[in-house]
Amino acid sequence: MKIAAFGEIMMRLTPPEYLMLEQTKELRLDFTGTGVNILSNLAHFGCQTSLLTNLPDNRLGEAAKASVRQLGIQDRWIGVSGDHIGSYFAEMGFGPRPTQVTYQNRRNSSFGVSGASSYDFDAFLAEVDLVHICGISLSLTEETRESAFMLAEKAHSLGKKVCFDFNFRPSLNEEHGVSFMKEQYEKMLPYCDLVFGSQRDLTDLLGMQLDKTLNASKQFEALVQRFMTKYQIEHFAGTIRQGEGSKHYLTGFLFDSENYVQAVPKEIINLDRIGAGDGYAAGVLLGVSEAWSLSETVEFATANGVLAHTIQGDVPLTTRKQVRHIMEQPTVDLIR
Amino acid sequence: MKIAAFGEIMMRLTPPEYLMLEQTKELRLDFTGTGVNILSNLAHFGCQTSLLTNLPDNRLGEAAKASVRQLGIQDRWIGVSGDHIGSYFAEMGFGPRPTQVTYQNRRNSSFGVSGASSYDFDAFLAEVDLVHICGISLSLTEETRESAFMLAEKAHSLGKKVCFDFNFRPSLNEEHGVSFMKEQYEKMLPYCDLVFGSQRDLTDLLGMQLDKTLNASKQFEALVQRFMTKYQIEHFAGTIRQGEGSKHYLTGFLFDSENYVQAVPKEIINLDRIGAGDGYAAGVLLGVSEAWSLSETVEFATANGVLAHTIQGDVPLTTRKQVRHIMEQPTVDLIR
Amino acid sequence: MKIAAFGEIMMRLTPPEYLMLEQTKELRLDFTGTGVNILSNLAHFGCQTSLLTNLPDNRLGEAAKASVRQLGIQDRWIGVSGDHIGSYFAEMGFGPRPTQVTYQNRRNSSFGVSGASSYDFDAFLAEVDLVHICGISLSLTEETRESAFMLAEKAHSLGKKVCFDFNFRPSLNEEHGVSFMKEQYEKMLPYCDLVFGSQRDLTDLLGMQLDKTLNASKQFEALVQRFMTKYQIEHFAGTIRQGEGSKHYLTGFLFDSENYVQAVPKEIINLDRIGAGDGYAAGVLLGVSEAWSLSETVEFATANGVLAHTIQGDVPLTTRKQVRHIMEQPTVDLIR
Amino acid sequence: MKIAAFGEIMMRLTPPEYLMLEQTKELRLDFTGTGVNILSNLAHFGCQTSLLTNLPDNRLGEAAKASVRQLGIQDRWIGVSGDHIGSYFAEMGFGPRPTQVTYQNRRNSSFGVSGASSYDFDAFLAEVDLVHICGISLSLTEETRESAFMLAEKAHSLGKKVCFDFNFRPSLNEEHGVSFMKEQYEKMLPYCDLVFGSQRDLTDLLGMQLDKTLNASKQFEALVQRFMTKYQIEHFAGTIRQGEGSKHYLTGFLFDSENYVQAVPKEIINLDRIGAGDGYAAGVLLGVSEAWSLSETVEFATANGVLAHTIQGDVPLTTRKQVRHIMEQPTVDLIR
Amino acid sequence: MKIAAFGEIMMRLTPPEYLMLEQTKELRLDFTGTGVNILSNLAHFGCQTSLLTNLPDNRLGEAAKASVRQLGIQDRWIGVSGDHIGSYFAEMGFGPRPTQVTYQNRRNSSFGVSGASSYDFDAFLAEVDLVHICGISLSLTEETRESAFMLAEKAHSLGKKVCFDFNFRPSLNEEHGVSFMKEQYEKMLPYCDLVFGSQRDLTDLLGMQLDKTLNASKQFEALVQRFMTKYQIEHFAGTIRQGEGSKHYLTGFLFDSENYVQAVPKEIINLDRIGAGDGYAAGVLLGVSEAWSLSETVEFATANGVLAHTIQGDVPLTTRKQVRHIMEQPTVDLIR
Amino acid sequence: MKIAAFGEIMMRLTPPEYLMLEQTKELRLDFTGTGVNILSNLAHFGCQTSLLTNLPDNRLGEAAKASVRQLGIQDRWIGVSGDHIGSYFAEMGFGPRPTQVTYQNRRNSSFGVSGASSYDFDAFLAEVDLVHICGISLSLTEETRESAFMLAEKAHSLGKKVCFDFNFRPSLNEEHGVSFMKEQYEKMLPYCDLVFGSQRDLTDLLGMQLDKTLNASKQFEALVQRFMTKYQIEHFAGTIRQGEGSKHYLTGFLFDSENYVQAVPKEIINLDRIGAGDGYAAGVLLGVSEAWSLSETVEFATANGVLAHTIQGDVPLTTRKQVRHIMEQPTVDLIR
Repeated sequence: MKIAAFGEIMMRLTPPEYLMLEQTKELRLDFTGTGVNILSNLAHFGCQTSLLTNLPDNRLGEAAKASVRQLGIQDRWIGVSGDHIGSYFAEMGFGPRPTQVTYQNRRNSSFGVSGASSYDFDAFLAEVDLVHICGISLSLTEETRESAFMLAEKAHSLGKKVCFDFNFRPSLNEEHGVSFMKEQYEKMLPYCDLVFGSQRDLTDLLGMQLDKTLNASKQFEALVQRFMTKYQIEHFAGTIRQGEGSKHYLTGFLFDSENYVQAVPKEIINLDRIGAGDGYAAGVLLGVSEAWSLSETVEFATANGVLAHTIQGDVPLTTRKQVRHIMEQPTVDLIR
Repeated sequence: MKIAAFGEIMMRLTPPEYLMLEQTKELRLDFTGTGVNILSNLAHFGCQTSLLTNLPDNRLGEAAKASVRQLGIQDRWIGVSGDHIGSYFAEMGFGPRPTQVTYQNRRNSSFGVSGASSYDFDAFLAEVDLVHICGISLSLTEETRESAFMLAEKAHSLGKKVCFDFNFRPSLNEEHGVSFMKEQYEKMLPYCDLVFGSQRDLTDLLGMQLDKTLNASKQFEALVQRFMTKYQIEHFAGTIRQGEGSKHYLTGFLFDSENYVQAVPKEIINLDRIGAGDGYAAGVLLGVSEAWSLSETVEFATANGVLAHTIQGDVPLTTRKQVRHIMEQPTVDLIR
Repeated sequence: MKIAAFGEIMMRLTPPEYLMLEQTKELRLDFTGTGVNILSNLAHFGCQTSLLTNLPDNRLGEAAKASVRQLGIQDRWIGVSGDHIGSYFAEMGFGPRPTQVTYQNRRNSSFGVSGASSYDFDAFLAEVDLVHICGISLSLTEETRESAFMLAEKAHSLGKKVCFDFNFRPSLNEEHGVSFMKEQYEKMLPYCDLVFGSQRDLTDLLGMQLDKTLNASKQFEALVQRFMTKYQIEHFAGTIRQGEGSKHYLTGFLFDSENYVQAVPKEIINLDRIGAGDGYAAGVLLGVSEAWSLSETVEFATANGVLAHTIQGDVPLTTRKQVRHIMEQPTVDLIR
Repeated sequence: MKIAAFGEIMMRLTPPEYLMLEQTKELRLDFTGTGVNILSNLAHFGCQTSLLTNLPDNRLGEAAKASVRQLGIQDRWIGVSGDHIGSYFAEMGFGPRPTQVTYQNRRNSSFGVSGASSYDFDAFLAEVDLVHICGISLSLTEETRESAFMLAEKAHSLGKKVCFDFNFRPSLNEEHGVSFMKEQYEKMLPYCDLVFGSQRDLTDLLGMQLDKTLNASKQFEALVQRFMTKYQIEHFAGTIRQGEGSKHYLTGFLFDSENYVQAVPKEIINLDRIGAGDGYAAGVLLGVSEAWSLSETVEFATANGVLAHTIQGDVPLTTRKQVRHIMEQPTVDLIR
Repeated sequence: MKIAAFGEIMMRLTPPEYLMLEQTKELRLDFTGTGVNILSNLAHFGCQTSLLTNLPDNRLGEAAKASVRQLGIQDRWIGVSGDHIGSYFAEMGFGPRPTQVTYQNRRNSSFGVSGASSYDFDAFLAEVDLVHICGISLSLTEETRESAFMLAEKAHSLGKKVCFDFNFRPSLNEEHGVSFMKEQYEKMLPYCDLVFGSQRDLTDLLGMQLDKTLNASKQFEALVQRFMTKYQIEHFAGTIRQGEGSKHYLTGFLFDSENYVQAVPKEIINLDRIGAGDGYAAGVLLGVSEAWSLSETVEFATANGVLAHTIQGDVPLTTRKQVRHIMEQPTVDLIR
Repeated sequence: MKIAAFGEIMMRLTPPEYLMLEQTKELRLDFTGTGVNILSNLAHFGCQTSLLTNLPDNRLGEAAKASVRQLGIQDRWIGVSGDHIGSYFAEMGFGPRPTQVTYQNRRNSSFGVSGASSYDFDAFLAEVDLVHICGISLSLTEETRESAFMLAEKAHSLGKKVCFDFNFRPSLNEEHGVSFMKEQYEKMLPYCDLVFGSQRDLTDLLGMQLDKTLNASKQFEALVQRFMTKYQIEHFAGTIRQGEGSKHYLTGFLFDSENYVQAVPKEIINLDRIGAGDGYAAGVLLGVSEAWSLSETVEFATANGVLAHTIQGDVPLTTRKQVRHIMEQPTVDLIR
């Protein structure tokens, strides 16, 4: 299956060795973004992947493309527009100190200023079976909203699978209120086949209600099933994080039209606190695109999410072999 | 409140990535010292701070001043004298391997050779509300003892608050015995308002006795109260470390003339095993200088001490916002 | 003399060891900008300096302020506004390969979005004898133009010295044509006492004519004198670069109302190709503020400009002692 | 034109900052090789490129492929075989100290053990217009000789252009004598259209004679013309290095069936002393494949070779814009 | 006691900060190998040590010797032969992600191609009391097997102690089956006095049977005693790893002809997952060579093995003082 | 010939990439000192070398010894005393910016506090043919003077060759005047066979007069000959630096009892401006100890001095092969 994504390439700048920004002049530069992360992981799983986006026509744009290629993603649909790449600084946390992300201007990025006319959606879609669209597009600018809607609509009408990721960040939506954002998501969802989200996305953003008459453990299940029926979603997936003392666990869930499965919780040991969600998503996309059973899919995807936390940076670089290794031989900590 | 400190600026040289000295030629250079650490943290809390010390009139002295300014401390009371900065090498421990500190010559440092005539105490004190004096001054050289006593006496007589930190290190006092050091501390304490120390400082150094007729849990409290009464100390504070299996916990305590509070123990996860004491002291100085309740003060100061262990180097760089964050949302490990 | 500047703090991101962006993930982060560069150098010369600007209220803003303090510049007039710091990437050239600078978005920076109402000019000017304004302000945004004009006007009317730097970059002025920019410069110049610029600024931007009837060597002199008379400028200064085979030379010039001097050309050996202009300007400001002779000033300033090229980064960190050393003992290449 | 190469991917391990191996534990790892270098440069010129080779099926092989993709080269013809990648250590020279290359085992590399049956030459050639074969293949192993011959023969018979690079290294041919090597080259040359070499390759290796009756300046020209006629070569190209005092110059030459041109010598300023030959070859391949004039080609290729010496590592990463820049504006050393 | 070893010097190349090979171009180079590791540790314990091996006569060979000297090992028995040093890349694991070792060609290394005639065993043995031979020699090449056998035989006949380490790696023995390897080990064991191995070495490789009629806890003991009797082994030692939840423990065991002791399990906290076995072996060799009690020896050796996991790289650099410190004061995590 | 030295081991701390101390927190640590430098170079030439000195009994002392061993020097005569190692910071110059050395306290170093009773000179000398004593010993402390005199006297009386290096630094002798220092040198010289120095040492320090009646070119020669006769010196050697425009040249000279030779000046291209003197001295010691002709010796030693400037750090690491390479093939800048 040829998998593509539409989304922003950002720069992540990270001080080394858990230092804070005041403590060092050295930074590590990685190119990242939800689309980059998911596609790179799928490429490492052996899929053919391609990213649709725009970058500036300068040295930074070229460096970004080189990095994307290195990650295994085709760069032929990366166009040229604008003169800025959005960036964020990640001061990596340690123990009780949280990882602190500081965003720089994203709205004026090459991606942010690119409307639908900047892309050749038809040619792009002709080469694609499934396209992933990140919800950030709905928050960023009028241009990214327009582009996301047109891409989703065209893909849907051409019978391509559309995968959508809620990824709702209040910090990016201070300008527009929740009701504006709700409208945007409601406009997008009818085009979508596979959706990543959480209970909070359905209740707080879309305004759906939990059925309190149900047994507590069934409320979430029923809510999701109503949501999937309403928008004719084929799969809905996401992760839950739980803490127990100073230990943290990750559990993935996955719904299809009839069933609901949840993975065995797996302990999280963090090298980098960013990126597990995209790792989980890549795992689900692999399982769904290869028609694995739901439970095989969530177990693989959860293991992959946990591995993503052990890798520096947002981009999960795991192979099938590595994921299967920690599923099958979790106690082997040295391979030679 | 304008807070100042009198103390030594030292160089800390640390190999990267937990390497031992034999394993690398790379070192990280930080300027540190109890005064630097506490003032830098108070500056990050928004206080106006100033350090009284001497440095050599050379490139190293200039670099040290630049670093102190960067940390938010005013450098206008840093004078010029001598030709040497004391240093120590910190081989950072990991798991059961302890952090190993190796000191180089301190007695011949610019600070060590500077007697009272090297400083303009009156002008300095005119700009200060509270001055912190580190007990190391009493151990280092005849000159630093002389300077510390004169500064404390003048500050006291001018009605400035004097904060003193026992910081008794047997390794710096092999030349003089305990009885000599006891005399020095007894000479200093009458000038002091706020003192940092431990039970052992009162019993082993000052030779005070625990009242064994008391309930065990009251013996320490009674001891401190006798100590505070004897020297007319307004606040006495310190930390206790406890281990439980492979976990370690930090608890701060704080006495005023009438009450005694102890914080809820907080788990320590170490990035750097040096610096929590100064983080705790900065927290207490903030609370006391802003007249917080004792319990508000110890909880904040203990959280700050725990955060200090998650920061590379001796210098705590926490802001109020960061400390409050881990007090209020301890499970959030990623902020964006 | 208390010297201040009004200008932008930018981030410079530089790959190590002459690598190109594609070749490394490591970057060195420096905070820079014309104001930062000149003031830092003056602070290293022993002057009291202060920067008027705005930064975002986040971790990057704090890191920028810490860096500015380290350089010796007071940070009390650095306000909070916006949420972005402009940045540029510098791929350092080697031999025939030019240094390549790639700018990221500057117009949306905290400085770019700050109009006159963001600053308390009166309070600021009360503490200042001379203020430096960088011409970039006239190119950047409507807000920076407005702020620059109001500051210059107020400073002028209060009898403070105003120093202005043409710094005209066509790349920042693609939107507005030359005639628009000419108007802006003409509006600014009447407030100015000391101006940095080049012959091209006077002819191509202001549209002044060389008097071809004059001896070629007098044309530039006469042009500048007309310019100075027209706008009642006290000093006009700048640098000329000349190549001779593979060698390059720097020469500073300086006019006062009556005289014109030019320095002995000094060979440039580049560690970093950015920053000599600001080094030259700092040298001139020092000489003028201390009323040195014109020729003493240009020789010192030219030597300082040459030294700036031997220092990594834009920020000249030279002391008077270092500049005098290479003026007096140019063949001594090791000091101990 | 679709350009491909057949050749080895090697690891280059380089200590930083001109250090010698004894002086550091840090190394920079680059993947390199004549094919990688030429194709990467052509990809930066905008050509579609592809490498035919084999790598081990392990983590190093994956990392090598990722690096090749980053450089802009398609990795779909990189197969899996063997378990070793050849490597060399480059201690970078400075001034009179030469760069010292130390090779590790190459004969047992994945490439070295791969015979003709390891590759699908027909499928590969179907996608290619011109294929570059490095002469190292003739020296390395029986398997690489066999593969190179079969590829050249098939390409030639299919009417694809074959480009061959003498690249004769005595150090790789201690086992076999010159007469054995001569046979190999004579077997290869009839398949070739474009050949890179030197006068010494024709005289010392192939045993051809200079015609001493000719004017000295014509001897080389006549020799090459005889060589080209004998093997029906369309283009012959190479570089000459000349020293003049402590300055070094690079000059490229290029023959077609009728003409001979030589570039204006350009001064070499070395950041890295390895890689100019491949930069020159990439320039020639670009000119020839786009049917530029001989003189346009050699000037561009020589400038590119000179630029290659200003870039860390063997791989030239220059764009057309950069090469044209130093051809047209050689004195501009800072672009912004 | 003068302790020597016969074995390979390898290069270990490790990306920094837990990065994977695709994520960085930076590597750390260490020279390692079982013999290097054990001797270096013994040298840090104060023993006189010497390594018998061969290296190439080039810059890498010189760098390897310099590194060995730095570790405290005499280099006078390191000869010159071949032109290759075996290497491996270690991608360091984190949490559930295992450390991944990728070997490069070892069979063609200088050590691998050196047969018995390359060494002067008699002169070497004249200076030695005990010689350690690593079992890898039996797997590597015909030459290393021949050398190991001759050295062991000569040492045994001269009355020197021979220490042998099973170190059986299936990955190095794909070519030869288990029965071939069994023969080799059986040929070696009669020369040995002290052997390091595991139950699996005795059962799976040598084909010995557990006596299932015994109490489970006695089966291993009885097996080892039969093994020791059969080959007249004086000491047999090894380690057992156990997991309990996410915690791991190391326990050493040691047999002499009459007794069997096992250490108290110690928790493992990994900085580096490679090297504890060699640390344990060095501890046992120290105890045995100084005639400590069995239990003193295993406790020291186990503590040393645990410490080895807290040190970057394979080479344990612990001193007696450090080992005793964590045995006696396990809760002190900062020494100054 | 077994060559030994008596002298201090110092730490050199150097910022990377020509940065100044204010610009970085990273430092490179090297152990250095005249004795270390000369012996290391002789060890690389194949001589057996040994250093007599004292170091503290701590982690730094151990790291220093490890480094000395790595350089090829035996550490068995390095004793334990004191608790401090002298250090200096080297901010590396570039172009017109001079290298700036800043010393930290040396007088209180382990070497500085070690008097004659700290060493077993007899046992040491029994293993030595020639001993090098650095003149710094005469400046440092009473203890180092006493040690140097006793060692020189004993060596001389035992018929060992004594090599002495003036190395007179006014900065280390501010306390004692020139006449005091003159006495010390006059006391040392009668024990010496081979002396390194300059004309200025003989005139300004020893107060000898140039014979102005001689032809200018003969004055130096006659002066040295008088000096050598007076103290019965066998060889006198040193270097002269000359500038010609921006180029610098190094020339070595060497006297024996009858002849005087001077090398052909060689251009200096500096990677590091410290260490050429020790490189020259090592070359002379090699030639003299192997009884080369004077001119062979000065050419080799001068080439070695020039190479020393191309190596990072003070310690020359050149081999005979490398020195001969640049003498015989100065234009080959790449060896493979």
